[in-house]
Amino acid sequence: MDPLNLMRELAIDADTKIVILLLDGLGGLPLEPGGPTELEAAYTPYLDALAKGAVCGMSTPIAAGITPGSGPGHLALFGYDPLRFEIGRGVLEALGIGFDLQPQDIAARGNFCSLDPASGVITDRRAGRIPTEVGARLCEKLRAIDLPGVETFVEPVKEYRFVLVLRGEGLADGLTETDPQQTGVPPLPVEPTRPEAAETAALLNRWLAAARQTLADEHPANGCNLRGIARDPGLPRMPDIYRLRCGAIATYPMYRGVARLAGMDVLPTGETLEDELDTLRSHWAAYDFFFFHVKKTDSAGEDGDFARKVAVIEHVDRLLPRILALGPDVVIVTGDHSTPARWRAHSWHELPVLLWARTVRPDGVTAFGERPCMAGGLGHIHHVDLMPLAMAYAGRLAKFGA
Amino acid sequence: MDPLNLMRELAIDADTKIVILLLDGLGGLPLEPGGPTELEAAYTPYLDALAKGAVCGMSTPIAAGITPGSGPGHLALFGYDPLRFEIGRGVLEALGIGFDLQPQDIAARGNFCSLDPASGVITDRRAGRIPTEVGARLCEKLRAIDLPGVETFVEPVKEYRFVLVLRGEGLADGLTETDPQQTGVPPLPVEPTRPEAAETAALLNRWLAAARQTLADEHPANGCNLRGIARDPGLPRMPDIYRLRCGAIATYPMYRGVARLAGMDVLPTGETLEDELDTLRSHWAAYDFFFFHVKKTDSAGEDGDFARKVAVIEHVDRLLPRILALGPDVVIVTGDHSTPARWRAHSWHELPVLLWARTVRPDGVTAFGERPCMAGGLGHIHHVDLMPLAMAYAGRLAKFGA
Repeated sequence: MDPLNLMRELAIDADTKIVILLLDGLGGLPLEPGGPTELEAAYTPYLDALAKGAVCGMSTPIAAGITPGSGPGHLALFGYDPLRFEIGRGVLEALGIGFDLQPQDIAARGNFCSLDPASGVITDRRAGRIPTEVGARLCEKLRAIDLPGVETFVEPVKEYRFVLVLRGEGLADGLTETDPQQTGVPPLPVEPTRPEAAETAALLNRWLAAARQTLADEHPANGCNLRGIARDPGLPRMPDIYRLRCGAIATYPMYRGVARLAGMDVLPTGETLEDELDTLRSHWAAYDFFFFHVKKTDSAGEDGDFARKVAVIEHVDRLLPRILALGPDVVIVTGDHSTPARWRAHSWHELPVLLWARTVRPDGVTAFGERPCMAGGLGHIHHVDLMPLAMAYAGRLAKFGA
Repeated sequence: MDPLNLMRELAIDADTKIVILLLDGLGGLPLEPGGPTELEAAYTPYLDALAKGAVCGMSTPIAAGITPGSGPGHLALFGYDPLRFEIGRGVLEALGIGFDLQPQDIAARGNFCSLDPASGVITDRRAGRIPTEVGARLCEKLRAIDLPGVETFVEPVKEYRFVLVLRGEGLADGLTETDPQQTGVPPLPVEPTRPEAAETAALLNRWLAAARQTLADEHPANGCNLRGIARDPGLPRMPDIYRLRCGAIATYPMYRGVARLAGMDVLPTGETLEDELDTLRSHWAAYDFFFFHVKKTDSAGEDGDFARKVAVIEHVDRLLPRILALGPDVVIVTGDHSTPARWRAHSWHELPVLLWARTVRPDGVTAFGERPCMAGGLGHIHHVDLMPLAMAYAGRLAKFGA
């Protein structure tokens, strides 16, 4: 039986609250052999105290060796097998800029590129990394392109990147990308991978032809490619799967967007961790499940800034008592993927995970860090196991079978 | 390849014996933070000595967070994926009272209920929890109902619960329950979920109509519902899968029944652990595999009686040398699920597991308990892994592939 269906079948109501405190990119690496990771270097008295009464372990977001993007890492945490449920790149890009994507919209990531005017072959797939303001001006021009029967949105992202969204009746996904992933060849046409998508492919090719005319004098950005053309994956909704009223607290549009795709209510919040905590407090009574997203651990890791990542972790630690004071029944602390400062990027390493509840078996772990968690009582699990465990410890799952 | 087919393909004969010593509901929880679990509190010198020469670990019966009923927990232990092979509630209930269920029989759990005589809506789904002797008398009355072409059996279980079995040609499963799971509405008709079951549904509805007439003057038990209408799941038989002569030793009908569904010979035994040990000894030569079931750890856990659960574990420990004296080649000690006295019910927690054989790698575990097993050499496994491991350590599996 499908694990989500199993949850749907077994979920029962209870007067309990679950908090997933997600430190984006939490997992780290020592800067030097034998040294501490970011989490181990951080002074975290409250997380360590929580770990003493919790069960700890290591968790693989997707599968051994797989480095998750932000979408799959979060999907796994919410219980969706990310190898089965995929969020298309276009959808994620639209969510990332806070675009109000509708379920039937078709979204693509757009890349401006340089074309040889005579032959039409691509000479630079990133259009010489034009400045963001140039990209924005070109998007403005592209908005003038009309397609019959559908509305189009062209939104700048950063430098040579933009988002194209088509909205209208009868659009379908199942569409190939135009980027040939190399220079010296022309962009490919969009092709339907299933018959229902033929009309949408024709519309996109019509748009691309018009875009090429519009951009003709804009070298180095005299062409563009469309990638990851997709729609809302139509995920089963967490409230229906788990019988939980789910609230998401996140400062960045992309995480709010992913939470919304999973059926959570996205709660209004500000820019800081303190704002997020206020949001948690003011919505405490109205929800059973909170996804509390901390972005800056990941940003510091991506920047290769070990000390800043440590500081963000210590900041979260200082806020922890105020989260616990609300009286949650289950608290999970982990990340969506590792972003070691030393690696300056997402990585495939397992995540330390701490699960606190009143009915855990103590496991002797007395500090929250990668090394202690390797010996923790949870062992080595996968992110998709975390929601079922949270549900069990929250007394929200009936017995399976007689 | 399906794991059972893999076993079937690789199983070879050997002159070795496997004993699974199953302490039902073995896994526990500390009563107080930092305290011992039931198993850790028990004085178990023989189990500890066995653990020293064994490899230990923690095992999940079904999946993370899932609390198993008795059926699925045992199926997993015998190597059947319990998410794939399910034993219907009616079948388990019939097995639980020792009913001699035949492969083609249709079994349902029956619940007497109270109906409003005028409107026919359910006013009490448990018929005021009528005494067991009243339930027995009503079953006697219901036996008078004749159905064309099939034999019916109506057997009391306890209080308002009974078992209905239909036996005859052409019966099929795939039938909905009649219990609407709420009061204020009438019982539902049995409906077929596949065309082959239409005739069986009609027979059951005919029986229900007759039952209502029969019970008309028996308020508060003037109606009944049928639940978990099912047949023998037709499991592949363990002797065929593993090439093992399998003997089951259990004092409770339900476990004998599940063992029989799995193709084991159910060995006659008495009420006590000593009786079970005598049975093991007297059948030692005739079987290769023994499932030795200890019920009272679970009963004590369900009763919330920590001390009694400890005492049962200590009782088993004292018998252990007499099991080992028989010279088994592989001994596995674990449970089908956890039943912490503190939780007073089955739970989702992992089970400590001990696997003793002459060719295990020692892992430094010197006591059999949840915490030591968390650090054991088996790591964190699943119950369906145990039979393949037992087979391997018994020298009963050929090499896979060239």
